[in-house]
Amino acid sequence: MKFIAEIDIMPLKSLLDPQGKAVSQSMKKIGFNEISHVRIGKHITLEIEADSKEKAMERLNEACHKILTNPIIEGYSYTLHEKKEDH
Amino acid sequence: MKFIAEIDIMPLKSLLDPQGKAVSQSMKKIGFNEISHVRIGKHITLEIEADSKEKAMERLNEACHKILTNPIIEGYSYTLHEKKEDH
Repeated sequence: MKFIAEIDIMPLKSLLDPQGKAVSQSMKKIGFNEISHVRIGKHITLEIEADSKEKAMERLNEACHKILTNPIIEGYSYTLHEKKEDH
Repeated sequence: MKFIAEIDIMPLKSLLDPQGKAVSQSMKKIGFNEISHVRIGKHITLEIEADSKEKAMERLNEACHKILTNPIIEGYSYTLHEKKEDH
């Protein structure tokens, strides 16, 4: 089975997010006073082949810990759905 | 009314994604042969104040065009929900 994963990786809430802060300030400068609390992270999509959804989640968690995120400064969440093959 | 926006900004499908490609290759090297088609973009969360959801969406589209994305190389999608105030 083939699954498509959509992963959000965000700086932990307890940490400063300098990029997000810079964008928040730029928003004010160009007239978007109603926008605040900008936080910037990564969005990753990928395909994963596995025998079951459970197995796919297990491997995906491993990949997130080993290569996709830095758990000291980032948290992640994801959704996983089966890929419909095109015919 | 205060809304929370969750925005995904991805490289357009028709374009190469060098960062995603590099991560796809790294996956293979460290034993994640079942993972492929990695694409990497940005995930942005922000708060926006507006009289209605329609108005918030209008302003958010403006912000996406003017500051958050580069429409030549990136596409975006978002979800918007009302912020529940803490009591």
